[in-house]
Amino acid sequence: MTSPSLYAVIMAGGSGTRFWPASTKARPKQFLPISGGLPMIVETFRRLEGLVPAERVLVVTAGSQAELVREALPELPAENVLCEPMARNTAPCVAWAAHEIARRDPDAVQVVLPADHVIRPAEEFRATLVAAAEAAADPETGGGLFTFGIQPDHPATGYGYIKAADQLGESQGQAVFSVERFVEKPELSVAEGYLREGGYFWNAGIFVWHTPAILAALAELTPELDAGIGRILEAAGDGAVLAAEYAELPAEPVDIAIMERAADVRLIPITYTWNDVGSWKALDEISEKDEDGNAAVLDGAARLVTIDAKDNLAYAEGEHVIALVGVEGLAVVRTGKATLICPLDRAQDVKRVVQELEGDGPEFL
Amino acid sequence: MTSPSLYAVIMAGGSGTRFWPASTKARPKQFLPISGGLPMIVETFRRLEGLVPAERVLVVTAGSQAELVREALPELPAENVLCEPMARNTAPCVAWAAHEIARRDPDAVQVVLPADHVIRPAEEFRATLVAAAEAAADPETGGGLFTFGIQPDHPATGYGYIKAADQLGESQGQAVFSVERFVEKPELSVAEGYLREGGYFWNAGIFVWHTPAILAALAELTPELDAGIGRILEAAGDGAVLAAEYAELPAEPVDIAIMERAADVRLIPITYTWNDVGSWKALDEISEKDEDGNAAVLDGAARLVTIDAKDNLAYAEGEHVIALVGVEGLAVVRTGKATLICPLDRAQDVKRVVQELEGDGPEFL
Repeated sequence: MTSPSLYAVIMAGGSGTRFWPASTKARPKQFLPISGGLPMIVETFRRLEGLVPAERVLVVTAGSQAELVREALPELPAENVLCEPMARNTAPCVAWAAHEIARRDPDAVQVVLPADHVIRPAEEFRATLVAAAEAAADPETGGGLFTFGIQPDHPATGYGYIKAADQLGESQGQAVFSVERFVEKPELSVAEGYLREGGYFWNAGIFVWHTPAILAALAELTPELDAGIGRILEAAGDGAVLAAEYAELPAEPVDIAIMERAADVRLIPITYTWNDVGSWKALDEISEKDEDGNAAVLDGAARLVTIDAKDNLAYAEGEHVIALVGVEGLAVVRTGKATLICPLDRAQDVKRVVQELEGDGPEFL
Repeated sequence: MTSPSLYAVIMAGGSGTRFWPASTKARPKQFLPISGGLPMIVETFRRLEGLVPAERVLVVTAGSQAELVREALPELPAENVLCEPMARNTAPCVAWAAHEIARRDPDAVQVVLPADHVIRPAEEFRATLVAAAEAAADPETGGGLFTFGIQPDHPATGYGYIKAADQLGESQGQAVFSVERFVEKPELSVAEGYLREGGYFWNAGIFVWHTPAILAALAELTPELDAGIGRILEAAGDGAVLAAEYAELPAEPVDIAIMERAADVRLIPITYTWNDVGSWKALDEISEKDEDGNAAVLDGAARLVTIDAKDNLAYAEGEHVIALVGVEGLAVVRTGKATLICPLDRAQDVKRVVQELEGDGPEFL
């Protein structure tokens, strides 16, 4: 038998302001070149190179972001961009893509991944992906719904955790575990307990499953969602039906709608670099530094000059220079319409600026 | 008798980088709106309003800045802009303007003032100017070469000082002193002594004199300069002669070439706000603050948002927002080609950035 084709679903509908002013409603984080020289969605696409050709990559995004997707990924066939009429959390997105892939190839294996995570090195990620894909479609082991668990290196309180159970075996030399439970973002003391106890992994929201398995899970675990998606596919691109049905879909995360309820969830650990880059501080942590600890996340045209400056993050677009003199631990962000100066340790307070501008100065958002 | 006409000579040839990135070789400080909504040279011109009409205002500047002068002061007749072929310090500038005014009105009174100082309130300055002008042209008192002395409020080491001698009398209710001596920028301990002793004033480089008096002083005290200027005027606008002669003029400051050597120097104290705005820190000191001590020097289009930010200076041009979160005592400067972040206390180190860019990145200067 030939092994099933691998399809990818890139979830790119997110919109956030934690990277303001770089990220805006019109241009969210996944379209920013913050994880390298390329927009994150392009890095995510390239990470699949050699495993998933463009014609088998689906991107689920907001209608307002469709043009940004086309600009970022011109090699993507137009029919591979699924535009949600409104955000309904991740379960509807996953279900829609699962059915669309089933329509094209009922035997496909699907990998679902966010557009805005940093995962390095790409070779190791592809190896994990291959291991999961083979196991997911393996009639011997019965497949299952696979998720990747990130080996924690600190008691993070910003991620959900997955408690692994018994190791079931190996695939391509990578350990495969059954899953005991999913847990929400914990308090610090609880997270510290998880690290001591071991067997807990961060939930990265990356999933691999065989199409028959996800369709069965959808039908069994979230029939209302499943039926709504069914009507959307029957309407075959009818925008009115899509909008009407989508608005009624239960807006749940896929973790809750499916993974926490499914019997046959499997976990493969990721022990290399993963980061969902949730703030300017997180970006600083994964960025290369000069000898003074300064990180420059610049497009080709901008440059950074430092004089007695330490441990700063400079982000800039366009042709100009950022000069830092005698400052330490700052995020300095310059875009066409705004400049942000904020200690990296206060990166979360960027939202307070956004709140102020929403009321008085929305043109800068 | 009718009182003599008052002419003004605005010295606008300066070029510096202490206000980089706002000030550049192409657009020096006197053309920046740092002392209010208007470029400093315009503020200087407006300060004379009601006393000196545009046709009696001469601006001495560098050829490279002539266009900037015309843009800033469109009401100025073209023949009132004297373009120096090269910088030769202030004495040649003063001598050239003095002879040019003499050519137009041998009985004029002249006020010579830098284009890039802040002086407030304008009414009080005009009153001092009128007092000096009347005294300078008064045959009773014999006129003299007048300078304004700034009443020191701290032992500044960045200014030269003038030691006043006896009070000679009053003009328009303002005290007029003879001058004992000019002193160079002192050490701190010396400056502290001056404040204790009293009778010392900062040398603001603002002068008032009757045309016959300055011509006599030039002929007697700096004949070489005087002769060179004479040949330039004879050549009546011949650029080649101007360039050749100007290059040979002794490049001295007017203070040394004339004031320190003249017998009849007079001083009128200035007790209101004067500042030569020599750095971002100096600008901060004279700028209005919000309740958190933040100063926003912005053109109409830019705006400042602060969250837990204290005692910062934000300078920006163009339509965008500067957001300061949790930072203190910084100069944050954004222009079209650069962004500077520097503690106000280290404003003098801006020159180190400029030095670095001169070698590697001159396009940002």
